[in-house]
Amino acid sequence: MNGNSIGKAFVLTCFGESHGQCVGAVIDGCPVGLPLSPEDIQIELDKRKPGQTSVSTSRKEEDRVEILSGLFNGFTTGAPICLIVRNLNLESEDYEKIKDKPRPGHADYVTHVKYGGFSDYRGGGRFSGRITVSYVMAGAIAKKLLTQINIEVLAHTIQIGNVKITENVSYKQIRENVYKNSVRCADPETALLMEKEILNVIEERDSVGGVVEAVALGVPAGLGEPVFDSIDSDIAKMMFDIPAVKGVEFGSGFKAASLKGSENNDEYRIRRGKVVSLTNNAGGILGGITTGMPIVFRVGFKPTSSIAKKQRTVDLAKMEETEIEIVGRHDPCIVPRAVPVVESCLALVLADHAIRAGIIPRALGTRK
Amino acid sequence: MNGNSIGKAFVLTCFGESHGQCVGAVIDGCPVGLPLSPEDIQIELDKRKPGQTSVSTSRKEEDRVEILSGLFNGFTTGAPICLIVRNLNLESEDYEKIKDKPRPGHADYVTHVKYGGFSDYRGGGRFSGRITVSYVMAGAIAKKLLTQINIEVLAHTIQIGNVKITENVSYKQIRENVYKNSVRCADPETALLMEKEILNVIEERDSVGGVVEAVALGVPAGLGEPVFDSIDSDIAKMMFDIPAVKGVEFGSGFKAASLKGSENNDEYRIRRGKVVSLTNNAGGILGGITTGMPIVFRVGFKPTSSIAKKQRTVDLAKMEETEIEIVGRHDPCIVPRAVPVVESCLALVLADHAIRAGIIPRALGTRK
Amino acid sequence: MNGNSIGKAFVLTCFGESHGQCVGAVIDGCPVGLPLSPEDIQIELDKRKPGQTSVSTSRKEEDRVEILSGLFNGFTTGAPICLIVRNLNLESEDYEKIKDKPRPGHADYVTHVKYGGFSDYRGGGRFSGRITVSYVMAGAIAKKLLTQINIEVLAHTIQIGNVKITENVSYKQIRENVYKNSVRCADPETALLMEKEILNVIEERDSVGGVVEAVALGVPAGLGEPVFDSIDSDIAKMMFDIPAVKGVEFGSGFKAASLKGSENNDEYRIRRGKVVSLTNNAGGILGGITTGMPIVFRVGFKPTSSIAKKQRTVDLAKMEETEIEIVGRHDPCIVPRAVPVVESCLALVLADHAIRAGIIPRALGTRK
Amino acid sequence: MNGNSIGKAFVLTCFGESHGQCVGAVIDGCPVGLPLSPEDIQIELDKRKPGQTSVSTSRKEEDRVEILSGLFNGFTTGAPICLIVRNLNLESEDYEKIKDKPRPGHADYVTHVKYGGFSDYRGGGRFSGRITVSYVMAGAIAKKLLTQINIEVLAHTIQIGNVKITENVSYKQIRENVYKNSVRCADPETALLMEKEILNVIEERDSVGGVVEAVALGVPAGLGEPVFDSIDSDIAKMMFDIPAVKGVEFGSGFKAASLKGSENNDEYRIRRGKVVSLTNNAGGILGGITTGMPIVFRVGFKPTSSIAKKQRTVDLAKMEETEIEIVGRHDPCIVPRAVPVVESCLALVLADHAIRAGIIPRALGTRK
Repeated sequence: MNGNSIGKAFVLTCFGESHGQCVGAVIDGCPVGLPLSPEDIQIELDKRKPGQTSVSTSRKEEDRVEILSGLFNGFTTGAPICLIVRNLNLESEDYEKIKDKPRPGHADYVTHVKYGGFSDYRGGGRFSGRITVSYVMAGAIAKKLLTQINIEVLAHTIQIGNVKITENVSYKQIRENVYKNSVRCADPETALLMEKEILNVIEERDSVGGVVEAVALGVPAGLGEPVFDSIDSDIAKMMFDIPAVKGVEFGSGFKAASLKGSENNDEYRIRRGKVVSLTNNAGGILGGITTGMPIVFRVGFKPTSSIAKKQRTVDLAKMEETEIEIVGRHDPCIVPRAVPVVESCLALVLADHAIRAGIIPRALGTRK
Repeated sequence: MNGNSIGKAFVLTCFGESHGQCVGAVIDGCPVGLPLSPEDIQIELDKRKPGQTSVSTSRKEEDRVEILSGLFNGFTTGAPICLIVRNLNLESEDYEKIKDKPRPGHADYVTHVKYGGFSDYRGGGRFSGRITVSYVMAGAIAKKLLTQINIEVLAHTIQIGNVKITENVSYKQIRENVYKNSVRCADPETALLMEKEILNVIEERDSVGGVVEAVALGVPAGLGEPVFDSIDSDIAKMMFDIPAVKGVEFGSGFKAASLKGSENNDEYRIRRGKVVSLTNNAGGILGGITTGMPIVFRVGFKPTSSIAKKQRTVDLAKMEETEIEIVGRHDPCIVPRAVPVVESCLALVLADHAIRAGIIPRALGTRK
Repeated sequence: MNGNSIGKAFVLTCFGESHGQCVGAVIDGCPVGLPLSPEDIQIELDKRKPGQTSVSTSRKEEDRVEILSGLFNGFTTGAPICLIVRNLNLESEDYEKIKDKPRPGHADYVTHVKYGGFSDYRGGGRFSGRITVSYVMAGAIAKKLLTQINIEVLAHTIQIGNVKITENVSYKQIRENVYKNSVRCADPETALLMEKEILNVIEERDSVGGVVEAVALGVPAGLGEPVFDSIDSDIAKMMFDIPAVKGVEFGSGFKAASLKGSENNDEYRIRRGKVVSLTNNAGGILGGITTGMPIVFRVGFKPTSSIAKKQRTVDLAKMEETEIEIVGRHDPCIVPRAVPVVESCLALVLADHAIRAGIIPRALGTRK
Repeated sequence: MNGNSIGKAFVLTCFGESHGQCVGAVIDGCPVGLPLSPEDIQIELDKRKPGQTSVSTSRKEEDRVEILSGLFNGFTTGAPICLIVRNLNLESEDYEKIKDKPRPGHADYVTHVKYGGFSDYRGGGRFSGRITVSYVMAGAIAKKLLTQINIEVLAHTIQIGNVKITENVSYKQIRENVYKNSVRCADPETALLMEKEILNVIEERDSVGGVVEAVALGVPAGLGEPVFDSIDSDIAKMMFDIPAVKGVEFGSGFKAASLKGSENNDEYRIRRGKVVSLTNNAGGILGGITTGMPIVFRVGFKPTSSIAKKQRTVDLAKMEETEIEIVGRHDPCIVPRAVPVVESCLALVLADHAIRAGIIPRALGTRK
């Protein structure tokens, strides 16, 4: 398999399956001397916890972090940090019945081909959205590191199904409102419409997609390494590692295709002795390197693959066509719970690059 | 810098600057026994060669490949393959005048910050589109490898400025038409409109963006490694390493955000004893792994940053605001020349993953 | 820190500290479909377990493996395998008293400098010999993989202090005798002398070093990748990652320095239709690649650093010279317990290279 | 093949064959702003140049470095540095005759097995000692970097055949004498005996081995990353990547096996306000991390495999036993020419770790 590590300086290795004993993460390369407690991680885990609202899966997950290594007297030691969350409240029998019937839109069929029947198929196994627990745990540490250099990461839902946010929201609105509603939208009125969109598809035994926008504030100019470890390519790679992501665009994104250079270029000015641009079509990145302006990008999510509605599929054991109605507990829209995951993944990439660039030092102070 | 290698089994390391001695590539991990000649590489280089049409830069580049290592008697030996193309026809003095004036939309300002004045600023140096010569040389080898397992990669322009291709084009049309017109469009009529769009911006001393679609045919199910080396995340990373890319989407892409699960899921059927899906909203990828359906994705390009039109910028030496009119030879639209680059980059990722999965063996036969 | 992973195809990431909650390992890249049980790992762990004989530390460690991920229905799934052993029977208070007094020959002083006082100093923390539990757990899986292709790894003690094995021992003797005596020597008579050597230094409140020889049988010609991932360089690297190792030599080793080419070269012959050499001064490796002859090498261990005898050191808090008498439970000679560690480490490197070379496939069969 | 890169921060990728067009190196990760000229590299290349004395091969190699990228106005830019040396004065026809007869002690047979007849067999191809030209070129840059932080690397011959240096030589003697005699020995009298030893084997149409000792001075405490990227394991790996190396030992090395802890431990003292040890049995490394004392290690080389004396081998085409007398130009003892290679390789590892540890910054100053 062998693709379970990411990052070059702040390296995340993750493990675990949806219905196995736990999901976990090992972080290698965290600078020495960062104050860290289980609560720092729990607070982020709680943001993605299911079963919180009427619009998410009813699977109740405790999701309590256990720190197995790398901490001593409340500080990181430089040794690898292993974190796990035990899997509880499992209903694996739902999956036994459909193990030969690949669910449309899921990885069931490809894992069958790739792993010759050895995969843990329960709940999607290693391909479950539950693996993002590992991303969030590691992301919590990354966020804490970034606060040392005053970088803030934000994410918010800007579209669910056909409901899009129509006006620009301020960073303040994002900070204050996102975790106050069930859809993680910074505009309370749009949030209500989005909730309704989700309730509609629940009624239809269907699901719906959406778009998350993410922003990083306070990022200094100069992060990102040419030519293959550009900051946008590393962010994009990480985003496509979140299940259900189908598109990523930075700044003016696909819209730039229909713009002229004179419209899309961000001209430079000097403000308070600093070089700035008044527009940010670049999304804070030029030549793969941060410009000092906010990093801005959008991530498109497909609708949840698991739907209760009847669908056509095949029986792989009998090699005949058949139908499937998926029971089990699934989010009708993955987007709200993806918001903290996008935040975490952005933090992971920025922490990695900040360490690579020497902006976050290997040791944060000395201990008496 | 330290981000100049990509791939895990078929590893590309690239080097060189726009106005230095050469641009080059080292490929480590190419299987043994692949027949390879300079012509195999030259044919791909010629596809991206500038100065070919009325709609591209007038910089005439010979771009002759030299193979410095890794070949013996017409076959790859398993040793690393070093390829270079000398830089000729340089007009570096154009850049001397503007070295303290960062061009809007270019990497000039960020390299100034990141490299403290040591960068080779001539022609964008390491940040020039010219570095894609390295991608194309390595991609030529990747393509040749892929033909061994009957994988074909195609790319074509589907949008330039406000001109979009309106009807689906067949793979046959792509194969036959793309390199017959200057904009690399599979539909000859749309091609004419696209050419006109470009000629318009030339007149306006401006530039324009566009969108390239890429397809890989014959890809077996099972390529891609969970969870971080998913095939889509690796393709996306590689695409964002092409200068001027601002967005990447697979299959139904951002449109999936407004679809329902029942609309977006590709149901399975059995055809001639094989599992297939009749639709391909997944773009040939589920759970980060290829499904056996064609891989389909789109890449959005911003308009060329270098425009002749007057723009506002700053003088970094004097730290004051100023203006710039960029002379030199630039493509008014990078998209047509990006088409072979997208093809090459796709081939690189697929070759890497095909070797990783053992689908391309380490040694292609034995020599008497 | 960021050096806690090793291997390219069979990747071991390890974590944990001597007196933390556990020591652990994540293996990424284990082929799919390997039958594996906790007992397979426990049997190897038991070989390095302390407290077994009169010549080892009295620290009693249960050392029970827990498999947290990567197994399903008794087979590996291709997903990363996380293994841990809980730390029990800790006597951390011994270390509190000496935390400012670096023990001569230990990493205490360098960790103090490198980690600015944040290290977990209890029992050596991340620098303890206890981290080899991770090597042995991962090595158990590697060994099981190697048995699939009939590779066998053996190790045995050939020197302790001034007692050296004087006659060649057969592979049969190694297999049968090594784990029958407390010093892991294949020759029972020499074993008695070695035990006496250790009992002598215990009496002197001192410690003693030794040499382990390792052999890999059944290794096909062709493992190892030029030029930097040669099989000898990867084995040597892994061996020097075992605490207390000070030297590694292959085949005729340092003795080759005084030989002539005509003496040291292994001439080729044909035996039963196969190319062989009658001698094996190469230790089974030429040009960094296995020859098909047994891999043979020796690993020199220094005497245990922790001794009860009074030693001079410094007080880092007061920056003054002082003395130290180390209490706590330490092996008077690390060599016997290093024997299974050397075996495991050799297995790890060979499994990694066998997968890289395609000799062990990514999937071991298909499951009904 | 895929093993042609080494290092994590200062990454060397090398390419080229003995009788191909060139041997080359790409260095990725060299800090920005290092003053560098072709002469800096040439001076190191000249140290390993053959044909200089009566005791080395008569192959005359110009070995002129060409810098293809990464330099601008006399300074490194942070972009990858590509260096090549053209191969001249080739006599490839010598090899044609023996291409089916593997030379004992050489990689011919294993490459035949591994690469199925596709290898470039001329002069050993990718397995020639000539590839160390790449190490020396990269090492020259590493050395220049190390001088920025006052680290000095030295190497000298301490044994050739049965002639060993008997008394300790001072660093001053090493600096002054090594390149004044043909055997690279710091003691002029021993040098004469060593030369005689080599002349003897020349007369016998044979070859002889030897031992090189290396020292790094001025290394601060704290270099090296636990647990797998320990400084000794990385140095050892690099040394075993030099052709003909059969053993590596640090500090007291294999001799430590027969020492007691009280003899081998280096006790701490305070001298001029600094913690030091009066002895250095550790060879400057504890727990895989530098102690601040000089790094000291020895590298054992086997006798040159290519000898003129008649040897038995096999004909792989006919699969029958035969004899071989190797003509061509070969060093009767590789050790003298290995001295600058050992120096270079040590410098490469230290530069890599110094950058990793942040001791060498990513940018050396700013340019006006």
